[in-house]
Amino acid sequence: MVNLDDLTLYQRLDPEGMLEQLKGLPRQCHNAWEKALKFKLPPEYRNADKVVVLGMGGSAIGADLLRSLAHHLKRPLIFVVRDYDLPAFVDEDTLVIASSYSGNTEETLSAFSQALNTRCHKLVLTTGGRLGDMAKKAGVPVFTIEHTSPPRAALGYSLMPLIAFFQQLGFFGDVSAEVAETLATLEDLQRQWKNDALQSSNLAKQLATSLYGKIAVIYGAGILSEVARRWKTQINENSKAWAFFEALPELNHNAVVGYAMPPELLPKIFVVLLRSSHIHPRTLIRYQVTAELLQQRGIPHQTVDAPGKGELAQMMGIVYLGDWVSYYLAVLYEVDPTPVKVIDYLKKRLSEA
Amino acid sequence: MVNLDDLTLYQRLDPEGMLEQLKGLPRQCHNAWEKALKFKLPPEYRNADKVVVLGMGGSAIGADLLRSLAHHLKRPLIFVVRDYDLPAFVDEDTLVIASSYSGNTEETLSAFSQALNTRCHKLVLTTGGRLGDMAKKAGVPVFTIEHTSPPRAALGYSLMPLIAFFQQLGFFGDVSAEVAETLATLEDLQRQWKNDALQSSNLAKQLATSLYGKIAVIYGAGILSEVARRWKTQINENSKAWAFFEALPELNHNAVVGYAMPPELLPKIFVVLLRSSHIHPRTLIRYQVTAELLQQRGIPHQTVDAPGKGELAQMMGIVYLGDWVSYYLAVLYEVDPTPVKVIDYLKKRLSEA
Repeated sequence: MVNLDDLTLYQRLDPEGMLEQLKGLPRQCHNAWEKALKFKLPPEYRNADKVVVLGMGGSAIGADLLRSLAHHLKRPLIFVVRDYDLPAFVDEDTLVIASSYSGNTEETLSAFSQALNTRCHKLVLTTGGRLGDMAKKAGVPVFTIEHTSPPRAALGYSLMPLIAFFQQLGFFGDVSAEVAETLATLEDLQRQWKNDALQSSNLAKQLATSLYGKIAVIYGAGILSEVARRWKTQINENSKAWAFFEALPELNHNAVVGYAMPPELLPKIFVVLLRSSHIHPRTLIRYQVTAELLQQRGIPHQTVDAPGKGELAQMMGIVYLGDWVSYYLAVLYEVDPTPVKVIDYLKKRLSEA
Repeated sequence: MVNLDDLTLYQRLDPEGMLEQLKGLPRQCHNAWEKALKFKLPPEYRNADKVVVLGMGGSAIGADLLRSLAHHLKRPLIFVVRDYDLPAFVDEDTLVIASSYSGNTEETLSAFSQALNTRCHKLVLTTGGRLGDMAKKAGVPVFTIEHTSPPRAALGYSLMPLIAFFQQLGFFGDVSAEVAETLATLEDLQRQWKNDALQSSNLAKQLATSLYGKIAVIYGAGILSEVARRWKTQINENSKAWAFFEALPELNHNAVVGYAMPPELLPKIFVVLLRSSHIHPRTLIRYQVTAELLQQRGIPHQTVDAPGKGELAQMMGIVYLGDWVSYYLAVLYEVDPTPVKVIDYLKKRLSEA
């Protein structure tokens, strides 16, 4: 296994600079927030009682995090749609937000073109592409993402504008203090987890080392349920490795029974339990008992507590840890974290069909 | 590996009779349907524009399947809540259905007790327990499940009443033809997949044999997304084995990139792709390309097409296949499919906390 403290590794294995993208996340979140505060939405969007975000992969996850953050809201109801079809319930009281970094995601284009045939409120988040063109032609407001990176590294732009819009529309109260805490937390964590922070005191490098050669299984609950999904997808895309995610308390009703078979593979799985102080107290007990069950079965695992105080800071802190872990895991596998050739192949095959 | 055509195995490994439960699913669905048709709901429940089903594990999956089946409805919106807290949006236009086979599921009891403090419409599905008592005391209608089995084997009672209620309340049109097709399909499949049907022509035995010694990964889309979840939980609980599920098209945006690492574990995973003729045509192309990608990586996999014509028949046909596969996989692992000692341990630890 390569030594993650050897700084020459990073130029060799990461020629496209995912490292700089990771280091830049706090700044990106700051920029996206400031830019979104200045973006004025049509005032009638305040009437929406449902918000539907259309998106896939790295563009959808921001909406998942928004929904987690909005769990205390009576209105609007929030839906994340990862499919070709617009839900049948979309009406004039629905705000449909099409989110696609490239603007060329075919599922999002399909569902958005259906939205154009309804009287719903509409908004687009993109760098451009066909989605940008469709929106312009239809007079739909476009929030332009000004950031160049793989879509999954543009998380600041897929999340912070949604939070800013929810504040502007009066769905959230003033969240500026939460945002400030989050940005400060991310800056602090960047120093702890970046590549010149030695492994002996670098949790991200340590976790990546634990996950090396294993199938990653990520558990979350409450505000960290969708963060677990983010970890899974980052390990898939950055580390090119198998990963899965599940949510507590549900997994206590089935997954835990499956800890027995196949016996020879039990040491080949590594479970990361993502924990937050905002999780229901009974569920926190379940974390403890679940870890005991894993221990009894000899299944490697580790519980990670979210840094920071507020919900947004804790969510984003653990998101950031997953980003770093998946990055270091790519380095350990000696694969370039940036290219996703398989998705390029898929798009090519789909375009021929 | 034991021989699944050896009929003496089943008495030895299945002393509590999960086999009879499986064989009885068509009849159970029939009984649950007939009983639910006779159950009269308060007419004002027709006004609900949101339906929230509170449930965990085997009691929640019926609601997942209902939601898949209702994808074409404008109203009501359907939510499945697997947690301690009632969603903040619940109001007097919401029908809250608490579904717990035992009536003693602590998450469901917690959320239902919160529902009792709201003006929402309420309904309970249970065999009794504390939930039954709470409902009676509060004057909430109780649909009593008259079936004795592990909760996961009572799927007929967690799904068919919900469909019947949706018909009664006018959310669905007359679905009796779909139900009749489904019952006939299940009867037919029972003959194909039961234990005296030889492995040479028994898809369930063949798939279980393929999954033996592997980590099961189940892919679904559209009406089969939640069916994939059912397979996962049945493999966990019946076979005591690791299993995961994912949905297309989303998995094309991340999971497929992870097919590379760790290389030595790739042959230790088996992917089942559950396919239905009701799935979006572009997603059907994705099934094909995803299978190609698995093939290229040397990852064992198999695509299974849903039997039957209608959406309900296809969903339930594939659910039934997963039930049989997980059962035979338990037999191959030589574990008793019925007891879930780990969940009993968990409940004990939680009751002490």
